[in-house]
Amino acid sequence: MSIQKLLVANRGEIAIRVMRAAHDAGIISVAVSAEDEDRALHVRHADEHRALAGKGARAYLDADAMVRAALDAGADAVHPGYGFLSENASFARKCQEAGLTFVGPRPEILEYFGDKVTARRIAANAGVAVLSGTEGNADVNSARAFLASLPAGSQMIIKAVAGGGGRGVRVVDAGMDLEDAMARAAAEARAAFGDGALYIERYLPNARHIEVQVVGDGSGRIAHLGERDCSIQRRYQKIIEIAPSPLLADSTRRQILDAAIRVAESVKYDSIGTLEFLVSADGQEFAFIEANARLQVEHTITEEVMGVDLVRIQLELAQGASIESLAIPDEATAKGFAIQLRINTERMKADGRTLPAGGELKAFDLPGGPGVRVDTLAFNGFRSSPGFDSLLAKLVVHSPSANFSDCIKKALRSLSEFQIDGIETNREFLANIMRHPDFASGNIHTRFVDEHLAVLADIIQKMPKRYVEPVSERRIVAQGLQA
Amino acid sequence: MSIQKLLVANRGEIAIRVMRAAHDAGIISVAVSAEDEDRALHVRHADEHRALAGKGARAYLDADAMVRAALDAGADAVHPGYGFLSENASFARKCQEAGLTFVGPRPEILEYFGDKVTARRIAANAGVAVLSGTEGNADVNSARAFLASLPAGSQMIIKAVAGGGGRGVRVVDAGMDLEDAMARAAAEARAAFGDGALYIERYLPNARHIEVQVVGDGSGRIAHLGERDCSIQRRYQKIIEIAPSPLLADSTRRQILDAAIRVAESVKYDSIGTLEFLVSADGQEFAFIEANARLQVEHTITEEVMGVDLVRIQLELAQGASIESLAIPDEATAKGFAIQLRINTERMKADGRTLPAGGELKAFDLPGGPGVRVDTLAFNGFRSSPGFDSLLAKLVVHSPSANFSDCIKKALRSLSEFQIDGIETNREFLANIMRHPDFASGNIHTRFVDEHLAVLADIIQKMPKRYVEPVSERRIVAQGLQA
Repeated sequence: MSIQKLLVANRGEIAIRVMRAAHDAGIISVAVSAEDEDRALHVRHADEHRALAGKGARAYLDADAMVRAALDAGADAVHPGYGFLSENASFARKCQEAGLTFVGPRPEILEYFGDKVTARRIAANAGVAVLSGTEGNADVNSARAFLASLPAGSQMIIKAVAGGGGRGVRVVDAGMDLEDAMARAAAEARAAFGDGALYIERYLPNARHIEVQVVGDGSGRIAHLGERDCSIQRRYQKIIEIAPSPLLADSTRRQILDAAIRVAESVKYDSIGTLEFLVSADGQEFAFIEANARLQVEHTITEEVMGVDLVRIQLELAQGASIESLAIPDEATAKGFAIQLRINTERMKADGRTLPAGGELKAFDLPGGPGVRVDTLAFNGFRSSPGFDSLLAKLVVHSPSANFSDCIKKALRSLSEFQIDGIETNREFLANIMRHPDFASGNIHTRFVDEHLAVLADIIQKMPKRYVEPVSERRIVAQGLQA
Repeated sequence: MSIQKLLVANRGEIAIRVMRAAHDAGIISVAVSAEDEDRALHVRHADEHRALAGKGARAYLDADAMVRAALDAGADAVHPGYGFLSENASFARKCQEAGLTFVGPRPEILEYFGDKVTARRIAANAGVAVLSGTEGNADVNSARAFLASLPAGSQMIIKAVAGGGGRGVRVVDAGMDLEDAMARAAAEARAAFGDGALYIERYLPNARHIEVQVVGDGSGRIAHLGERDCSIQRRYQKIIEIAPSPLLADSTRRQILDAAIRVAESVKYDSIGTLEFLVSADGQEFAFIEANARLQVEHTITEEVMGVDLVRIQLELAQGASIESLAIPDEATAKGFAIQLRINTERMKADGRTLPAGGELKAFDLPGGPGVRVDTLAFNGFRSSPGFDSLLAKLVVHSPSANFSDCIKKALRSLSEFQIDGIETNREFLANIMRHPDFASGNIHTRFVDEHLAVLADIIQKMPKRYVEPVSERRIVAQGLQA
């Protein structure tokens, strides 16, 4: 089961990330690209290339075409990345039937966790608390009935069954147009994942999003690689992630790690994966919300604090390695803190609302030094593609210090070093979030950005459009941390 | 003794490295530059800037001017980097007298280790084996007498007393023009360090260069952060460094670490520093050669395998921190392997000889992914300065794997990703060294490059001038490793 040639069924930074791990392991890589991708960096990183028919995300959602491309290239394995076909059990089966190793869990696992109702049942059977939700895929009627069953004033959250990354998500209450919200959510889900099915769950306000990275080899043995705090979200999309979670009580952390292991053990999980939980505002309760049976955007921060290569581990597991042979400890300990900042292309207006932004990069000079890493699809001269999502770069900083504020300072320093010119981004907005005293004190939750939007956007108006004077930038940093 | 504002008395990648650590610690940075430095990146990284009189390296060697610049900027501390004034006890004293904290050991330590004869006496008194050498600074007569005292056929090595980085170094035997060699060595040393004094030692052929990173807080307590193997040298200048040393017998490693600690303890070493040893070809014997009482070019690989920020530690020690307060373990353990590759500007001829190369960078796209770091003074549009040394970038790769060949693969992958256009470099030559089967098997010594020069240079002639086809590059990689 040794992989010789790997088709990477994805694009952008994650395709490059996967190819790097493949090349480090001596595996030949094959890139794919859509018709409207000009000079895509992931193609330049690959050893070989196959063109897909169609434009934009749609090209990456055609499972049959993807399998044909892999066979045509003589690949013996396929890595799906995240998004697109990564959690599509039917695609994983098609790969299997074509004799291709699917780098991810076996198709049944994708089905279990792809169906949110089944996922919740698995968690409950493993003795883990879950949030109430619809019994099966939701339509407007079942959604309305579910909301009516909750205490007055409750909110519920609509999610894409096939989803991730905030696409197809809406929070609604009794006063809102449910039909419209579900129609929009379904359309978004269809565009992103090729599947418009929705699922509804009770919405827990001001909760913290904590997720656990697990590793399984199919034998039932599960190792964890600690947790990530992904509470800083905007429009239900994570924008800043932290590992490990600052200020999570040790007993709660322990319970969540145990819960994640129990769920993964119960299905004999056989790849790397993530179990997501919400933790109540007081930190006393938590509930399983979903599992992502794939590589995640924020896998990077776990790599930094744990000193591992998660994609390499994923490739090894797909080739039959055991946890023992990979020398993954049952109880890994994080060293210091790591923060990932998602630098997205966008134009922010004075009221905090955003518009799409695009163009061509005139400068793109990366920050550096020890513990600073940038995973990106961009380069000097890069031209943005409106057909794909707005993630331009992931800035990942790791500080070996046990003091979380050291990691924040390093993140702000790295952001200020990052020279991006030609396309507007959320760089200053990310800096403002990290300068907020509640961020430094760990007082964060999934609605943190929404609640503080006015203040965060107001400061931006008073800041220079981009980094010009290093000293003024750092003085603002210092003020923010002292505030 | 808290540092508020730090003048960085250096340039290039190490000035940027120091500024990053300062900024991460909330310290304001002051850059200096010579008259012939146009658009220097280290100046753009700094909060403030003072111009030095004079051109090239000479501007950085004027101790009085440097102290004046620091006082003029209102700095309370000076970091000397490496080279230039970094081991100059008189400069450290001038800083002290002006009320400036010198970020490095106290001046007496610089004097002890700056005088190679004293350094050898200290090591011998600490019970550590040393190589025989001249008693005091050497002139032609004492050098000739020393060579005559060695067994017939022996070689001796001429070194700059103030030196480092291979400047002012010559290996001579009885058949060579000693007067000419010493005159050239002295001229080189004067140009690089402002001091032409020379020192002579018995030359140990085919030895391995092993150095130990130590940390002292002045109390006499010394921690080590493991060893580095710097045997891959060209013209007595390190070009590839490895941490930890592959294939060093555990008992020898243990003895060398202990020897380094004993020497540092005996002087109550009070900063970060490096103790250098030669290990005989059979690995059975070792001798202390010198100590570098400063930050080293290759500190990066220790940072990667140990998960520490050495410059931050150096700054903390200068502010009075203890090893205990810094939480540095007495016995740190390396995780995996790290390799540093020094990418120098040069043009290599068919016979392996090199000529200086310069110009303007038209492309400079960095490699990336987990464990890949580039410390550089270069950027898109960078123009090389003939007045300074040829180090363009340090490519540092870290693999968590216990298998050294995984780290080599990652280094080759990263080299092949590194897009450098417009200035010729030794990139392919570095790749050829790492593809050599003796490198992978750890069969290396300080004359490895010289001995294999014909083969290494010959392969280059058959390779494309720069990376064009990823797959062909990686196929060469695979062949090299299998050979």
